[in-house]
Amino acid sequence: MTYFSVDRIQYEGVASGNAFAFKRYNPSEVVLGKTMEEHLRFAAAYWHTFNANGSDPFGAGTMVRGWDKYDGLDRSKARVEANFEFLEKLNIPFFCFHDVDIAPEGESLRETNKNLDVIVAMMKDYMRDSGKKLLWNTANMFTNPRYVHGAGTSCHADVYAYAAAQLKKALEVGKELNAENYVFWGGREGYETLLNTDMSLELDNLARLYHMAVDYAKEIGFHAQFLIEPKPKEPMKHQYDFDAATTIMFLQKYGLQDHFKLNIEANHATLAGHTFEHEIAVAAMNGMLGSLDANQGDLLLGWDTDEFPTDLYATTLAMLEVLKAGGLGRGGINFDAKVRRASFHMDDLVLAHIAGMDSFAWGLKAAAKIIEENILEEIVAERYRSFNDGIGADIVAGKATLQSLEQYALNNPVARLQSGRQELLRLKLSEVIFSV
Amino acid sequence: MTYFSVDRIQYEGVASGNAFAFKRYNPSEVVLGKTMEEHLRFAAAYWHTFNANGSDPFGAGTMVRGWDKYDGLDRSKARVEANFEFLEKLNIPFFCFHDVDIAPEGESLRETNKNLDVIVAMMKDYMRDSGKKLLWNTANMFTNPRYVHGAGTSCHADVYAYAAAQLKKALEVGKELNAENYVFWGGREGYETLLNTDMSLELDNLARLYHMAVDYAKEIGFHAQFLIEPKPKEPMKHQYDFDAATTIMFLQKYGLQDHFKLNIEANHATLAGHTFEHEIAVAAMNGMLGSLDANQGDLLLGWDTDEFPTDLYATTLAMLEVLKAGGLGRGGINFDAKVRRASFHMDDLVLAHIAGMDSFAWGLKAAAKIIEENILEEIVAERYRSFNDGIGADIVAGKATLQSLEQYALNNPVARLQSGRQELLRLKLSEVIFSV
Amino acid sequence: MTYFSVDRIQYEGVASGNAFAFKRYNPSEVVLGKTMEEHLRFAAAYWHTFNANGSDPFGAGTMVRGWDKYDGLDRSKARVEANFEFLEKLNIPFFCFHDVDIAPEGESLRETNKNLDVIVAMMKDYMRDSGKKLLWNTANMFTNPRYVHGAGTSCHADVYAYAAAQLKKALEVGKELNAENYVFWGGREGYETLLNTDMSLELDNLARLYHMAVDYAKEIGFHAQFLIEPKPKEPMKHQYDFDAATTIMFLQKYGLQDHFKLNIEANHATLAGHTFEHEIAVAAMNGMLGSLDANQGDLLLGWDTDEFPTDLYATTLAMLEVLKAGGLGRGGINFDAKVRRASFHMDDLVLAHIAGMDSFAWGLKAAAKIIEENILEEIVAERYRSFNDGIGADIVAGKATLQSLEQYALNNPVARLQSGRQELLRLKLSEVIFSV
Amino acid sequence: MTYFSVDRIQYEGVASGNAFAFKRYNPSEVVLGKTMEEHLRFAAAYWHTFNANGSDPFGAGTMVRGWDKYDGLDRSKARVEANFEFLEKLNIPFFCFHDVDIAPEGESLRETNKNLDVIVAMMKDYMRDSGKKLLWNTANMFTNPRYVHGAGTSCHADVYAYAAAQLKKALEVGKELNAENYVFWGGREGYETLLNTDMSLELDNLARLYHMAVDYAKEIGFHAQFLIEPKPKEPMKHQYDFDAATTIMFLQKYGLQDHFKLNIEANHATLAGHTFEHEIAVAAMNGMLGSLDANQGDLLLGWDTDEFPTDLYATTLAMLEVLKAGGLGRGGINFDAKVRRASFHMDDLVLAHIAGMDSFAWGLKAAAKIIEENILEEIVAERYRSFNDGIGADIVAGKATLQSLEQYALNNPVARLQSGRQELLRLKLSEVIFSV
Repeated sequence: MTYFSVDRIQYEGVASGNAFAFKRYNPSEVVLGKTMEEHLRFAAAYWHTFNANGSDPFGAGTMVRGWDKYDGLDRSKARVEANFEFLEKLNIPFFCFHDVDIAPEGESLRETNKNLDVIVAMMKDYMRDSGKKLLWNTANMFTNPRYVHGAGTSCHADVYAYAAAQLKKALEVGKELNAENYVFWGGREGYETLLNTDMSLELDNLARLYHMAVDYAKEIGFHAQFLIEPKPKEPMKHQYDFDAATTIMFLQKYGLQDHFKLNIEANHATLAGHTFEHEIAVAAMNGMLGSLDANQGDLLLGWDTDEFPTDLYATTLAMLEVLKAGGLGRGGINFDAKVRRASFHMDDLVLAHIAGMDSFAWGLKAAAKIIEENILEEIVAERYRSFNDGIGADIVAGKATLQSLEQYALNNPVARLQSGRQELLRLKLSEVIFSV
Repeated sequence: MTYFSVDRIQYEGVASGNAFAFKRYNPSEVVLGKTMEEHLRFAAAYWHTFNANGSDPFGAGTMVRGWDKYDGLDRSKARVEANFEFLEKLNIPFFCFHDVDIAPEGESLRETNKNLDVIVAMMKDYMRDSGKKLLWNTANMFTNPRYVHGAGTSCHADVYAYAAAQLKKALEVGKELNAENYVFWGGREGYETLLNTDMSLELDNLARLYHMAVDYAKEIGFHAQFLIEPKPKEPMKHQYDFDAATTIMFLQKYGLQDHFKLNIEANHATLAGHTFEHEIAVAAMNGMLGSLDANQGDLLLGWDTDEFPTDLYATTLAMLEVLKAGGLGRGGINFDAKVRRASFHMDDLVLAHIAGMDSFAWGLKAAAKIIEENILEEIVAERYRSFNDGIGADIVAGKATLQSLEQYALNNPVARLQSGRQELLRLKLSEVIFSV
Repeated sequence: MTYFSVDRIQYEGVASGNAFAFKRYNPSEVVLGKTMEEHLRFAAAYWHTFNANGSDPFGAGTMVRGWDKYDGLDRSKARVEANFEFLEKLNIPFFCFHDVDIAPEGESLRETNKNLDVIVAMMKDYMRDSGKKLLWNTANMFTNPRYVHGAGTSCHADVYAYAAAQLKKALEVGKELNAENYVFWGGREGYETLLNTDMSLELDNLARLYHMAVDYAKEIGFHAQFLIEPKPKEPMKHQYDFDAATTIMFLQKYGLQDHFKLNIEANHATLAGHTFEHEIAVAAMNGMLGSLDANQGDLLLGWDTDEFPTDLYATTLAMLEVLKAGGLGRGGINFDAKVRRASFHMDDLVLAHIAGMDSFAWGLKAAAKIIEENILEEIVAERYRSFNDGIGADIVAGKATLQSLEQYALNNPVARLQSGRQELLRLKLSEVIFSV
Repeated sequence: MTYFSVDRIQYEGVASGNAFAFKRYNPSEVVLGKTMEEHLRFAAAYWHTFNANGSDPFGAGTMVRGWDKYDGLDRSKARVEANFEFLEKLNIPFFCFHDVDIAPEGESLRETNKNLDVIVAMMKDYMRDSGKKLLWNTANMFTNPRYVHGAGTSCHADVYAYAAAQLKKALEVGKELNAENYVFWGGREGYETLLNTDMSLELDNLARLYHMAVDYAKEIGFHAQFLIEPKPKEPMKHQYDFDAATTIMFLQKYGLQDHFKLNIEANHATLAGHTFEHEIAVAAMNGMLGSLDANQGDLLLGWDTDEFPTDLYATTLAMLEVLKAGGLGRGGINFDAKVRRASFHMDDLVLAHIAGMDSFAWGLKAAAKIIEENILEEIVAERYRSFNDGIGADIVAGKATLQSLEQYALNNPVARLQSGRQELLRLKLSEVIFSV
C-alpha cells in the first residue's frame, strides 16, 4: 500500500524548477566538516503529519488522508506504514511522537498499554528495516479530559498517579525504540486563574515527577537525553515552563539541572516575546541546548500557528546559534509544524516538508558562511576588545572592586565609543543569505 | 516657599465628596493586625514626581512645575523642598530616587559626586526633621549617552568602570540616608541585536558587578536589602532581567540568590506577558519578594505607560499575594507612576497619588477580607485535598515512584473531578471589592 | 425531562449569600425610566451553552451535558428542551443560534433543510408557550470543510452558491421564528495569505451576497435588523470585517449602509486593539449600533477566549456608551461567552450566566448613576466650552476658513489649557461602580 | 562646508565588497519599463536624518552631528546644507519635512513664519541648483505643548485656530517649494480616555479642518496630492486614523474621498495588526494609494521603532502591491526610519540609507520577477476560475439571487476544492527574492 503518490524526493540544486525536489537540502554535502544530514538531523512530527485533521476552533477537519478509511488499531497501523513511507520518500532520518499519536487509547490503562505494545513492536520492525530512528518520544498528558486541571500539576492525586503511569510506559517505549531523547512538554502544567491555584504545591509536585522519571530511566537503563520544551501560554493562561530562562530556574531550584536540557520551539519563543535565536542562545549559554522544534509563528497573530519554517532570516539566525554552540548533539530538528488548514492535499505534506528542509539547509549554509568568513566574529571581538587587557582584563578576571574601578574612572575619561552598526549588519545578513 | 497649594490631605471616609481627601486610605486603621500604614509603606517616586516634564517621543514637556524657575543645584534644592512638602501633605512616609534625580550631573565624576553630597546633606536634614524615610535609592546608569551600549553589560570596560564608580557612590548615599533597600534596574542591560552581542560575557560581567556591590556594601556597613527590578523590554529590544523567573535564574546561576530579592513592577509584569500578581507570587514562592513598584499599564498599548494604579482588581490581587507572603518586610509600595502628559497641573500630582493610595488601601481591605472570611482558602484547600492522605500524601512526602503510582493507577479509576468554578470566583471577587 | 437541577434563579439583592441567586439583576427594577429587562435584553448563545463540549486545540471535550446521551435529531430536540428550561430558570428573555447549532447537517442541502424544519417547528411551539424570543439567528458558513476558503468570499463559485442557499434558508428560519435581528459574522471571510488571494474580487462578491440578502428579506417580508459582527483575525489570518470602522467603510463603499448595523463583540474589540466601549462608541457615532455580544477576553492572551463578562469597568463603560446612544433598540446583550474548559458541570452554565447578568446589571446601574449625577457630562461640556461661542462657534458652524483662523491666531494668544484630569476620573469611576 | 565624509555612493553591483556602495540600487536600470529611480522615488526624512538626536524615553541624545555646533537659525541653515549634500551623495531625488524640522519655532506665530520664510527661500535656491525635489511637506501639530489635547481635534478652539494657521502656512510653503504631496499625520488627533472625550465633535472638527485645507489649496493654486497617514496608537491611546480602512471610512463619511489618498507607513501597519502589504493593498483597492513611508517595526516590541527597512520579504511584498496598483504616481518611498540609538556616527546615516535603498531595489526586482514570470498570477487566476463562466459569471455580473443560487446548489454538488498551497508559495517567495 502506498499513501504518497510522489517518488523519493531528490536533491536537484537551485536551478531546478521541480517543486517536488530539494533545491538546497543536499544531505551528503559537507558544511563546516559535517554533512548536512549530520548537522540537521531532521525529524517528522507524527502528530501534525499523521494525526492532525485540519480542524481548528471554528472549523471541522479538512485533511484528505489515505489512512482515514481505517479505524482503531488498523488506522494506527496504516499510519505506521505511511510514516515510514514518508520518511523514506522525504529522506528524513528521524521521527517523533506522543504515545497517543501512535495507538488508540483503550477503555483502561491496561488496554491502552496493550495497544501501544502492538504498534511499538510494528514500529521496531520498520525501524530496523528502514534505518529510521526515533529522535524523541513523549507522553501526551494534556488532551484527555482527565488532565483538565493538569497532569504532574493536577489538583487531584489520582490524575497525578495516572500521569505517572503513562510516563512510565512512555519511558519504556522510548527504551524499546531506542529513542535519542525524551521530551516533556507541559501541555496543561500551568494555571487558568491564581484564584483557585496553589502554584507552589503544583511546582513541587512537578519536580517530584521529574525526579521519579530520572530515577526510573536509570533503573531500566534508558539513556535518552531528557528535554523540557518551554511554552508561555496556550492552552493554559499561564504555562509553568514559560521560556528557557524560567525552565532553567525551575531545574536549578529542584536540583534537576544535570538531568535535563531544553527542546526549543520557534513559535513558543515568539509567543513568549523572544526570538527563536534568543531562546537557543539562552539554552546554549547555560549548557542546556538539547533539540529544536522547527516551525514559525505569525507575529501578528497571538496563538501558536506552527507554520512550516520558510523565513530564511529565522533559519539562518537559529542555525548560527546552533553552530556557535557546537551543534545539536543527540538532538535534532523536528518539524513541529502543520500544513495550513487550506493545504489539505497529501501533496501539501510533501511540499511543506521540502519547504522546511530547504529553508533550514539554506539557513545552515548561510550561518556557516558567516562563521567561515568571519562576517560577525571579528566585529564582535572588536566591540569587546577593551576587556582583553588593562582594567577590562581585571574585571573579567574577578580582580576589580568598586574601589579600584572608581579609581580608574576618576582618572580616565571614558573612551570614544563605537557605533553598534546594526543597519549595516542587517543588510549584510540579507546579502549572505542570498549568496549561498 | 510652598509648591503645592493644597492643605494636608485627610482621611474623610467613603462618603466624602472632596476630591482632595482620602476615602479609603486611613493610615491608622488596623487590618489583619497591622495598620494600613505598616502594610502599605507608600513611597513617592522622585523621578516621576519632581523630574518628569511630560515629554514623550512625539512631544515636548507639558508639566507646569513651581521649581522650574530655578536652574542647576538651585533647582535640585527646590525639588528637595517640594519633595518633603509633598510627602508631608500626602502623608507618604517614604521616597525613592535615582542619583541623577536629585542632583545635576557635573562635568566630571568628581563634580557629580560633589553635587550629590550637597543634596544628600540637605536631604538628611529634612529627613531628620520630618521623619520621612528613604525606601530605596539607585543609580541611573541608562540615561547618559555613555551607557548607550549598557553599563554593567557595556561592551567597553571604561563604561563598566564608570558604572562601578557611580554604583559605589550610590551605595554610600544609601548608607548616608539609611535607605531600607537598594534597587538595581538594568535600564540598558540587554541587547539591541544578537548580531553584535556577546551575551555570555555581558551576563558574566553583570554578575561580577553585583558581587562587587555585595562586597562593598558589607565593607561599608550598608545593610539595605538589595533588589533587582525585572523588565522584559524597553528601552532595549531584550532586557536581561526579563521577569521574576529569569532574574531568579540569573541569581541562582551566579550564587547571588542569598543577597538579592526582587522589586516587582506592575507594568513590567504585563509587558512580559504576566499579571502583576503572578510576578509577586513567583517572587514570594522563591523567597524573593522584596518590594513593589506600583503602577498599571494599558494592555492595549505595547510600551511602559506607568499609569497610576486605579484598577481595583489589580490592587486587590496584588495585595492578596502580598498578604499571603507575610507582607512586604523592609520593602514598600513605591508609586513608579507618572501623571498623564495631559495632567500637567501641580494638583494632578496630588490627585493621582490620592487615586493610587486609595486604590491600594481598597485592595488591601478587599484582600484582607478574602483571607479573614476564607473566601478562597477553603476552596483551594478542598481542590487539593487528595494530596493530604493516601497516595497523594505519598507523592508529597517523596515516597512515590513511577512503579508505585502505576500500580495505583492500574487499580483505581480516576475520581470524578470537580469544576474549577472560575466564573463564580470572578463574580465573588467583584462582590468582595464592593463590600469593603 | 429536566436538565438543570436548580430552581428558577431569583433576585435576592446584594446581601444574599446564595450563589444561585441574582444579587444585581432585578429585571423589573427601573433605571433611567426603563426596567433592567428592557435595557439589557439578555440572550443566551445556543452554541456555547448547548453545543460546546469544552474541547480546545490541545484537548478533547470535558463538558458533562445531559443531552449527550442522545444522537442526531434526538439530541437536537433535547437541546431545544434544555434551552427553554434554561431561559426560564435564568429568566433570560432571548436566545440566539446558528443554523447548525439547532439541527444536524444532513447528507444534502435538502436533508439539512428538512432537519432544520423539524426543529424550527418545535422551537416555534416552545416560543409561543414560553414567551421567549429570538434575538437573532445566523448561518454558520465557516465550520464545514467546504468553507475552508471562505463562503461569500470563497474562491469557488459552487461554495458561494451553497452559502447563498444556506443564507436563504436562514433568512426564512428567522422570519418563521420572528427574529428581531439577523447577524452576519464572517467566520472565514478573510484570507490566509495575500500570495494566493484576490481581495478585491472577494470583497465585491461579499457585497453582492449582502445585497441579495437585503433583496430576499424584503421579498419575503422578513423585517429583522441586519447586523454585521466585526472581528479582526481568527480563524483567518486577516478577517475582512476587522473592526467597526472597517465594516462601516465596506458598507458605505457598497451602498449598504442603510441596511445594516453592527453587532459589537467585546473580545473581538480587544483583539483588534480597541476597548469594547470604543467599538460601541464608533458604531453609535455612525448610527450603526445594533446589538452586543457580551464576553471578555484576556488581554494577555492573543486569541478569542470568550470569557463570561465579570469586569465591572468594562460592563460599566459599555453600558455608558449604550445609554448615551439611547439604548440598544431591537438589539440586546447576547452572552457569546463560554464557560472555561475546567468549568464542566451543568451548574457552571448557571453560575456563569448569573455572573454575566449581575455584572451587566451592575454596569447598567453604575452607568446610569454617571449620567444621572452628571459625573462626567459637565466635565466634558466644560472641556469643549470654547466651541460654544466666538471663533469656536464659527468653526462648528462651518463658517471658519484657514484665513479667518489665521487672523484669530495671530491676534489671540492660546488660552491657558486645562488638565485632562484622567487620574481623578479613573478613581471616580471605581467609586461609582462600587457605590451602586 | 562638508558634513558627510564619504564620496558620492555609486552602484557597484552585488559582487562589491564595499559597504559604501549600492549593490542593488542602480537608478538607471530598467525594470518593467521604468527605471528604478522612476519606480522608487526615494525621499530622505528630514526629521530622522537632520533633527533626531537619538534620545528615547530612557535616555539622552547620542547622535554626533556636525551641525550641532550651531544654534537657532544658523543650525537650521547648516541642516539645509547637510540635507542637500546628503541627497546628492546618496543620489536621493526627494526629501520631506515637517515645518518645525526646518526652522526654529519663534516666540510668536509671526516670528515662526518669518523663520520659515528664511529657510524656505534658502531651500528653494538649493532645490533649483541641485534638481532635488520635495516629495511632501507637513505641519507638526503634535510636539508643542499647546497640542497636548490635539490640534484639529483639540478641546479648545484657540488651539484649533492656531493649528489652522500653522496648516495654512505649511500649504503656502508646499506651494512655494512645489511639493508633490502634502501629508496629514494626526499625531495627537485621538484620545487618551473616552471618559473626558467628545469623539463625535472632535471628528467633525477634524473633517472641517480638512475641508478648509482643500479649499485653501485650491484658492492658492497648490496642486499637491493630499495624503493622510494612518497610525493606530502612540502617542495617543487611540489615534483616529487607526489604519487604511478607518481613514477611508472617515473620508467617505465626510465627503472627502476625492481629495485625499493615503500615505502608508510600514510600522504603523504592523502596530495596527496588519502587514505593510495589506495596508497598501487596501489603499490601492480603494483607489487611495498615495505614497509610502518606508521603515520596519520589530514585531516583538509594541511601539513604533521606525527601523530602516532591511527585511526583503517585506520590501518584496510591498513592491508587489505597488506594481500591481500601477506604481506610486506622484508619491514615493520616504525613509521614515531612524538609525538606532547606538548607531550614532554620521556614517551610520549613510549606511542605513544604503541598506534601505538596496533592500527596496531588491524587493522591486523580486516583485517584478514575480509579475514577469507569472509566478503568482496564474495560480491566483486558476483559483478563481469558476467565476469566469456559468453560475460564477452570473454572480460577478450581479445576475444571481439567493433563489437562483439555491437552485444551483440543490442541483450541483460542490466541486472538489483545491489546496491553497501556502507552503509551496512561501518557499517560492524565498527562491525568487534570493534569485534576483
